[in-house]
Amino acid sequence: MKGTPVTAPALTIQELTAQRDRAREDFAALVGRGLKLDLTRGKPSPRQLDLANELLDVRAPVVSADGTDLRNYGGLNGLAELRAIFSQALQVPVEQLLAAGNSSLELMHDAVVFAQLSVLPGGERRWADEPEIAFLCPVPGYDRHFGICERYGITMIPVPMTETGPDMDVVERLAADDARIKGIWCVPKYSNPDGTVYSAETVRRLAAMPTAAPDFRIFWDNAYAVHHLTDKPAEIADLLASCAQSGNPDRAFVFGSTSKITFAGSGVGFFGASAANVKWWLSHTVKRSIGPDKINQLRHVRFLKDADGLREHMRQHAALIRPKFDAVDKILSTELSGTGLASWTSPAGGYFILLRVPAGCAAAVVAKAKEAGIALTPAGATHPHGDDPQDQLIRIAPTFPELAEVEAAIDALATCVRLVGTEKLLADRQ
Amino acid sequence: MKGTPVTAPALTIQELTAQRDRAREDFAALVGRGLKLDLTRGKPSPRQLDLANELLDVRAPVVSADGTDLRNYGGLNGLAELRAIFSQALQVPVEQLLAAGNSSLELMHDAVVFAQLSVLPGGERRWADEPEIAFLCPVPGYDRHFGICERYGITMIPVPMTETGPDMDVVERLAADDARIKGIWCVPKYSNPDGTVYSAETVRRLAAMPTAAPDFRIFWDNAYAVHHLTDKPAEIADLLASCAQSGNPDRAFVFGSTSKITFAGSGVGFFGASAANVKWWLSHTVKRSIGPDKINQLRHVRFLKDADGLREHMRQHAALIRPKFDAVDKILSTELSGTGLASWTSPAGGYFILLRVPAGCAAAVVAKAKEAGIALTPAGATHPHGDDPQDQLIRIAPTFPELAEVEAAIDALATCVRLVGTEKLLADRQ
Repeated sequence: MKGTPVTAPALTIQELTAQRDRAREDFAALVGRGLKLDLTRGKPSPRQLDLANELLDVRAPVVSADGTDLRNYGGLNGLAELRAIFSQALQVPVEQLLAAGNSSLELMHDAVVFAQLSVLPGGERRWADEPEIAFLCPVPGYDRHFGICERYGITMIPVPMTETGPDMDVVERLAADDARIKGIWCVPKYSNPDGTVYSAETVRRLAAMPTAAPDFRIFWDNAYAVHHLTDKPAEIADLLASCAQSGNPDRAFVFGSTSKITFAGSGVGFFGASAANVKWWLSHTVKRSIGPDKINQLRHVRFLKDADGLREHMRQHAALIRPKFDAVDKILSTELSGTGLASWTSPAGGYFILLRVPAGCAAAVVAKAKEAGIALTPAGATHPHGDDPQDQLIRIAPTFPELAEVEAAIDALATCVRLVGTEKLLADRQ
Repeated sequence: MKGTPVTAPALTIQELTAQRDRAREDFAALVGRGLKLDLTRGKPSPRQLDLANELLDVRAPVVSADGTDLRNYGGLNGLAELRAIFSQALQVPVEQLLAAGNSSLELMHDAVVFAQLSVLPGGERRWADEPEIAFLCPVPGYDRHFGICERYGITMIPVPMTETGPDMDVVERLAADDARIKGIWCVPKYSNPDGTVYSAETVRRLAAMPTAAPDFRIFWDNAYAVHHLTDKPAEIADLLASCAQSGNPDRAFVFGSTSKITFAGSGVGFFGASAANVKWWLSHTVKRSIGPDKINQLRHVRFLKDADGLREHMRQHAALIRPKFDAVDKILSTELSGTGLASWTSPAGGYFILLRVPAGCAAAVVAKAKEAGIALTPAGATHPHGDDPQDQLIRIAPTFPELAEVEAAIDALATCVRLVGTEKLLADRQ
């Protein structure tokens, strides 16, 4: 993380008081500006969506490469041409990759639901018939993963993140010992919210570790597979292949989507897994659907064209959002470096910057920001049940607002950090 | 049903033998023609799909009436403008009607799944925690309804259909006595496959009847709400209102879709219910999705415009498919009237004609048709587990093939009925 490690700097009470007073003045002025800005969710900006406006029109005839009329029923596995475009990025062979409906969140939800209602390959009983089931939740993590667990009464066991992914010593110990544990949530590349890229060793250990539950699954949410911010795209090891090589071929559920590639609300979700898992998956979806929206899939094929077209399109996204990430970094550096009040990530991809403030200050900073008209993701959202026990992490989502708005919002946020932080340091001294 | 009631006609053995021999000759000639025709599924024809080709293009900006950018995340309930167009046809107030993804089958599946995993309004426990649950299945019925029950181990209890809907004496008795029974599948208008329109009295009794299960649900698959074949559209009573009036406001789940209105594979599904049910539904879907494909919903709004536009569009469908239904009726009348070998429905809407052959003959007719190159829905598909105990019903789906193909296929089918039927009658005499 950038900035200074969050430890109290060697300031006198007088110096701290002066800083606090200046922060109070700045905050009063800030409130006076009557801002109304939103940094809550990782949404693409209208300009990013404009990049894909060609999707809106698709010329007839809408037929697939094999001549199928894509307007009609059928084609449960999704358009092969589209699966081919995403096969490399998601590291799933085309024949094991399904293209589905509007988002990968739906597919992750459905995987949890289907596993409750029918026995997974390798499993002994339905999850609904277990007295209790649990998931490992690397923290900080993605609130919507936790939301699925919460809805279905799945116990969430936090695991600390490291620079190379979840702390594998902890993961291995828990997974080996506790048969309640049926899965782990992972965002392996440019992780939400900390931007971590899982190391090859992490992937290898996840694939190979013994698990007490015979139907343990890695929910591999590769949401930012192609969402690079630099010219050196991060690569992660191939989980599906690694699982197969380790003798655990059915361990991985791979998810991806076009949601932050084309239109966030009208994209295509992908599910990839072993042949046995795909068969199990289809045994549910064949009862649920007579096929996904294949015209929308064709739109994506015609628009993206191939894997190179996908990469080029993502470079255009990066050109729009990189300046926003740079602005956040620059303003936080200017305002908070050396204060001992904050550190933050500088991710090479993905959608978020993670801000760390002194313990016990995150909720107060978010509340102050709200007073100043800046909407932030609730403090704690990075943890199961919205409970960050250290109360120190804030997720910043800089993509949606215009650059000038991002700058104004981060400037305001820094003021709130200075105010809450100096008050906390003073209180700690007294 | 048209034709002659299926009873052995008063023919001599000699007369019957002559008929059988002629049928054998005709069948041999038929096989010689090498036909390859498909009457299996209720799919719109390419010409019907052409009616909606304007959907393929949608002009930017894609914004809703309230100014929302429909390309981005959000809007879980679906586009209000679209829900308004379908509110009247589906008999659900706009605020209780949700517009979702690609099909109503998905929504029916998900309703069964959600009810297994969380307690329904009025319920005492999750269906997954019951030792056994059961659904009433009016027969003949829709195989995909039965498929959902089969996938989740739900016991299916057949109930005979009458001219006015399911036999309500049977339904009332079973629902009142058997707490395992959690629901009933209904296609209330132009029922699949028998074309029945539920009477007002049937609707009233369904809404008002006592049920042993406190969380009993009517799965009201109003798939053919606007799919009329005549100039006198059938009307059904308002189930949702009737349930509320009877003190059972949460009993109805209403489903509908545009699948056989615009593009079968790229439509919009609808879910309508009481406020309590909608809240329960959203408690699942809010964890599952960040909103349906709102651009596709906007395409539908711009294309259909309003309820009148919907009605006019459906008149164009009727103009394309009515001649096919007429052709089936004409050929069956010419070939089979007075033979005692068949009777059939003459529906005023929907997608199917139901052919009844002598008991024990349906599977053999379908097999013979296959020999002659005519694909038919498997005999028995109209019953749970594909088991028609009388083996006498065949579902004919005439919409997809071109008119000339429908004629050739029905002509061939009639030959198969004559062959199998006369052989059966002769065997019965011996």
